[in-house]
Amino acid sequence: MALYVQKFGGTSVATVERIKHVASKVAASRAQGHKVVVVVSAMSGETDRLIGLAREASAQPEPREMDVLLSTGEQVTIALLAMVLEQMGVPARSYTGGQVRIVTDEAHGKARIQSIDRERIDADLEAGRIVIVAGFQGVTEDGDITTLGRGGSDTTGVALAAALKADECQIFTDVDGVYTTDPRVEPRARRMTRITFEEMLEMASLGSKVLQIRAVEFAGKYRVPLRVLSTFQDGPGTLISLDEEDEMEQPLISGIAFNRDEAQVTVKGVPDQPGIASSVLSPVGQANIEVDMIVQNVGSDGTTDLTFTVHRNDYERTLDVLRAAAERVGAGAVLGAVDIVKISVVGVGMRSHAGIAGRMFETLAHEGINIRMISTSEIKISVVVEDKYLELAVRALHAAFGLDIETAI
Amino acid sequence: MALYVQKFGGTSVATVERIKHVASKVAASRAQGHKVVVVVSAMSGETDRLIGLAREASAQPEPREMDVLLSTGEQVTIALLAMVLEQMGVPARSYTGGQVRIVTDEAHGKARIQSIDRERIDADLEAGRIVIVAGFQGVTEDGDITTLGRGGSDTTGVALAAALKADECQIFTDVDGVYTTDPRVEPRARRMTRITFEEMLEMASLGSKVLQIRAVEFAGKYRVPLRVLSTFQDGPGTLISLDEEDEMEQPLISGIAFNRDEAQVTVKGVPDQPGIASSVLSPVGQANIEVDMIVQNVGSDGTTDLTFTVHRNDYERTLDVLRAAAERVGAGAVLGAVDIVKISVVGVGMRSHAGIAGRMFETLAHEGINIRMISTSEIKISVVVEDKYLELAVRALHAAFGLDIETAI
Repeated sequence: MALYVQKFGGTSVATVERIKHVASKVAASRAQGHKVVVVVSAMSGETDRLIGLAREASAQPEPREMDVLLSTGEQVTIALLAMVLEQMGVPARSYTGGQVRIVTDEAHGKARIQSIDRERIDADLEAGRIVIVAGFQGVTEDGDITTLGRGGSDTTGVALAAALKADECQIFTDVDGVYTTDPRVEPRARRMTRITFEEMLEMASLGSKVLQIRAVEFAGKYRVPLRVLSTFQDGPGTLISLDEEDEMEQPLISGIAFNRDEAQVTVKGVPDQPGIASSVLSPVGQANIEVDMIVQNVGSDGTTDLTFTVHRNDYERTLDVLRAAAERVGAGAVLGAVDIVKISVVGVGMRSHAGIAGRMFETLAHEGINIRMISTSEIKISVVVEDKYLELAVRALHAAFGLDIETAI
Repeated sequence: MALYVQKFGGTSVATVERIKHVASKVAASRAQGHKVVVVVSAMSGETDRLIGLAREASAQPEPREMDVLLSTGEQVTIALLAMVLEQMGVPARSYTGGQVRIVTDEAHGKARIQSIDRERIDADLEAGRIVIVAGFQGVTEDGDITTLGRGGSDTTGVALAAALKADECQIFTDVDGVYTTDPRVEPRARRMTRITFEEMLEMASLGSKVLQIRAVEFAGKYRVPLRVLSTFQDGPGTLISLDEEDEMEQPLISGIAFNRDEAQVTVKGVPDQPGIASSVLSPVGQANIEVDMIVQNVGSDGTTDLTFTVHRNDYERTLDVLRAAAERVGAGAVLGAVDIVKISVVGVGMRSHAGIAGRMFETLAHEGINIRMISTSEIKISVVVEDKYLELAVRALHAAFGLDIETAI
């Protein structure tokens, strides 16, 4: 008998009909003898409806009141799911974040969980009940309602799993697992049976929008095994866990991730002296623009070029900020491009294997694809290429690293 | 500087536009130097939407979960109102019933308030903030969400006013006060400046649906002055208070109430012996049918007739229950009529004045209206007449007791 935390997102509970389907899945786990804690999001569309009301009410809604408003979305879902389960004869109890004392800091709209009181949940589980907890919300020490930020229901699931020392935190979504790359780009993409937290982080941050990054970080930190499954289709999904597991075969490369939402900017002729990178980049951070890849090459004749990528929505604003900064530090022109895409190969296996980068660059060269930027981490190599090459590059790399479905069988 | 509890119902907060109007009224009270605690209902339509979802989820929704669901309605309104006020530069804080510890018993769906923790409210008022509390909801000692039953926001307002020893509990509705009778029936009906709790109870229970009966009882018990005002139209409204007030002129009759929703049933030839009324009526109560007027006349030849009124929706069910009961006790036929209406004259003044009943019956006789049933209390005389006489009877009585607008000026 295991203890599972099962999280269902907005699409999975979009209608009462779907909530009934979720109830049947949850009830099936209980029928197998497992204890189940369920975390649910707001019915899809509901959060947007509430945000619409808030916008009508105020140009800049008070964050405290925004949380009071938005937290009702999940509260509706927990009540409906509990009703459906009770109607099926399965004992269940619903709780808001505040009721199970998911205590957070006071950062309304993006609060962080500090503690969870497991007493009430334990008592219900002992009594044979399914416990249903509203995702995405908590409460401050003072009893003010907080939210964890949009999509934060995954984090609630992982935090509950950690607090309860659950055997698995199962995240039910509309995909049946994590794939070696986006199947819409490469139909031969394979569902992975397992993946490590680190790999998942790299995959997630690069655009495989299956899981919230924070939830994966959290799960890794507290060593909570995460499983991504489909709500609508039976199957084992993908298990995300520590890489120390014996049985885990470690392929060289786990997957090919990509991100079409970035833009590239370059500041030319930056005086090559200590602190210069920060004097160029600080104004960007101060403008609340998030920077992804940063590349600085070895300089020549006392200057260097600084290149980085930002979200495409921030492109124009970034150029403005940088032009001012460049003038201040006596740098040269600021250039940029939006017709680019970032492609990454990800895998813990590359740690102990040389030659991954070589094979990657070779594969791209063989297809005549010019690399505009390179950046590497311990388990990832990312390149920026012209966006028209996206599909070609992903498919070529997918095959080159033996990820195609044929080679897997 | 006074402390007011101001309650706004569902129609008053039906849209964000109307919530802005409510905010301006609340802010105006504060600008006059008053402390204000606001109680709001769910936006009109919202509770019905939630009930619809619950019905889809379960044929018999768990009462505990129903309360978790329904309480979100008011939570949305408090957040929106707080946002609007803050946007106007008026400091405000919203609270759910649980957050200000409106502790109730565990009767989900019809819970009764046991205590309120004023500490947090006092602190906010001291800090110059408007305090916004979700109506209709509370929390058990264990932290489970409860609701006071539909329309219970009035009760929340009165309970808060009592706990805070407020100067007035102001109930804002879509009418501008309590009238001597329904103006749609008698255009010469007058808005009353004042009315006693007892009179208001009789008026309310007889169909002047301005205020929740429970709220009026509660206000009377805790001597909280209640004022009924219009959200949409400025004016002093009607003050409902104790009748000991010196300045209160005491008219003989305060108003004419009526109820079109009743049906009359009679059990003929009931054996005239102790306990017989209860053996006929108990099965009705057990079937959860509420009985209003009950009349039993002095019997003859060892039997008597028992007549009473029930809600028209319960008429057929009542007949079924009574036929079975009549057979058991050896009574005669069970008869009934739905084409009836109850009309009452109400006034604390009648306590000390004989002849009110005489004038009432005389007035009706003069119009050729036959009385089918009479019942009296200390401050009310009710008659049942054929429903086609409703308008005629109300207008005749309204004039006969000097309530017409001309005589008032």
